[in-house]
Amino acid sequence: MAVLVTGGSGYVGLNVVQALAAAGREVVSFDRLPQPAVAAQAFASLPGRVEQVRGELRDRDALARAIAHRPCEAIIHTAAITSGPAREATDPCPVFEVNVLGTIGVLEAARDAGVRRVVITSSGAAYGESLYRPGLMREDDTPVLPTTLYATSKYTAERAARRLAELWSLEVACARLGTLVGPWERDGSAHAGGVRDNFGPHSQLAALAVRGGEAVLPVAESTRDWVYAPDVGRGLVALAEAPALGHFAYNLSAGIDWTGDVAAWCDELARRFPRFSWRHARDGESPTVHYTDRARSNMDVSRLEQDTGFRALRERPAIHAAFGEWVEWHGAAWWAAAD
Amino acid sequence: MAVLVTGGSGYVGLNVVQALAAAGREVVSFDRLPQPAVAAQAFASLPGRVEQVRGELRDRDALARAIAHRPCEAIIHTAAITSGPAREATDPCPVFEVNVLGTIGVLEAARDAGVRRVVITSSGAAYGESLYRPGLMREDDTPVLPTTLYATSKYTAERAARRLAELWSLEVACARLGTLVGPWERDGSAHAGGVRDNFGPHSQLAALAVRGGEAVLPVAESTRDWVYAPDVGRGLVALAEAPALGHFAYNLSAGIDWTGDVAAWCDELARRFPRFSWRHARDGESPTVHYTDRARSNMDVSRLEQDTGFRALRERPAIHAAFGEWVEWHGAAWWAAAD
Repeated sequence: MAVLVTGGSGYVGLNVVQALAAAGREVVSFDRLPQPAVAAQAFASLPGRVEQVRGELRDRDALARAIAHRPCEAIIHTAAITSGPAREATDPCPVFEVNVLGTIGVLEAARDAGVRRVVITSSGAAYGESLYRPGLMREDDTPVLPTTLYATSKYTAERAARRLAELWSLEVACARLGTLVGPWERDGSAHAGGVRDNFGPHSQLAALAVRGGEAVLPVAESTRDWVYAPDVGRGLVALAEAPALGHFAYNLSAGIDWTGDVAAWCDELARRFPRFSWRHARDGESPTVHYTDRARSNMDVSRLEQDTGFRALRERPAIHAAFGEWVEWHGAAWWAAAD
Repeated sequence: MAVLVTGGSGYVGLNVVQALAAAGREVVSFDRLPQPAVAAQAFASLPGRVEQVRGELRDRDALARAIAHRPCEAIIHTAAITSGPAREATDPCPVFEVNVLGTIGVLEAARDAGVRRVVITSSGAAYGESLYRPGLMREDDTPVLPTTLYATSKYTAERAARRLAELWSLEVACARLGTLVGPWERDGSAHAGGVRDNFGPHSQLAALAVRGGEAVLPVAESTRDWVYAPDVGRGLVALAEAPALGHFAYNLSAGIDWTGDVAAWCDELARRFPRFSWRHARDGESPTVHYTDRARSNMDVSRLEQDTGFRALRERPAIHAAFGEWVEWHGAAWWAAAD
């Protein structure tokens, strides 16, 4: 039995495919874009078998073909538009067409094919305004107040999935992801047809480090509820494979104190890449590395651990070491590749 | 300057068109269906001028033509699919296509045409699970926990409108409507292409009263946060015409204790229609009149009154008298008409 990963060529999707392949599973990766060659090469050495089916998320026939490609026991649905303000102002409808109607289409296809469980990926961003208040975000207790179209679309997909799971007696779980830090992130805005408008500071810095040069950081660091990207892959697989789940929504993040992490990551990169250096911006100087948002409160990640046994890495040196290894092995090829 | 009403042939829309025409305004009613003849005849005696433009909500050219039909200062957007469980299980996507993407299309068209203000209609249903807890629903304080696809789509349209209003510097207000009781309600499921799956108990009873017969009520009456439908029309017009608004979201309902109202309405109908009678169901007997939901808590309606001066009728005898008059004048023709 295989697991289907929608959006398998995207940032979250590649980490899910890798987690499944590392665990020796059969994987069908469904995406409108081909799997990047650098990733495909890396996955080839893993024990699982990864196959690609190309198609648009909202093409029901293509999706049904992907599900039928191998007997499919679970779907991990990661395909989405991760929109920034410019895209939201100029082209708002596709955010809902892909993130909401696309999710409904996946659930319909899963129902029709008798798939055992669907895991959909939501976002900590759905907590919206609550993220800027003190206290941990809890799945059922914290008011969900999405602000951006992206966050709204993710919460809408959650509520629609929960309703349809009930109406159709379908097993659906939902993961609210922290902000990924780690392998397989690209500057989406630099790719034609890219649908991810974020490019996190850790990857910005790593891409600069492999080229060589000096990074100029903003004076004030704003932390997010970051999580090591391969842990997101493993956590989603844990949700897909847990024998039984007691809840619908699960926070999936590290849930730790990240204060000072960007500077610490710079030091890690400077140790590995001697031609890289970094400093904070001087008075009036523009930084060359950008943060995407104000500091946010963390998510409570205890529910996921209780129900699946999975817990993301909590030790920042371990995360830096693992990500640093990946940057050394794959970073230059990854950020140089046009595909 | 005219006001455009989307969904002008629907239940909410007809009440808005009537409120505008009664206030002497120019009205452009935009709907895929013609204005029902019974309503058109009734509106002809009002001082305002009502014109119809036919088109699909998601046809951008048709919508732009409707806005350009008369110089348009405001849009009151009532077009929606009011879905019940059967529609949600069999055809979920149109609920979001119409209620979310349709709303975004209206905002885009308003922006392009320089319309001064857009009022969108949301629903008290958006409060979802909070409605079944004690206490008044407050616009910004009560957790919004939509459950059905309908409620989710309404909340999603709210959040999307709020975000786009900010990105586009557009004036948008949103009314969360109570459950309408009053003129121009039909059994949507009895009309081909109908998109309203509710038919409230007051209208069920009135339709029965004008035909003559006995109504059998459920033993337990569940109350909703009902509001007299013409007050919804007037309240939406107040939001469209207020010089300035301090908030985005406004509850629009009566906000009163409705206990025992269905029986009282039966008595009102029995006085006016001698061939009508009613009683409660006996042990094991099936009622012939149906309620749509469990009892719900009320909305706090003070914000709307503070910002616009508008307050819906609070006196149930006055509501019964006014609705009773309408049933006598128009009920027989209205519920007999096929259009």
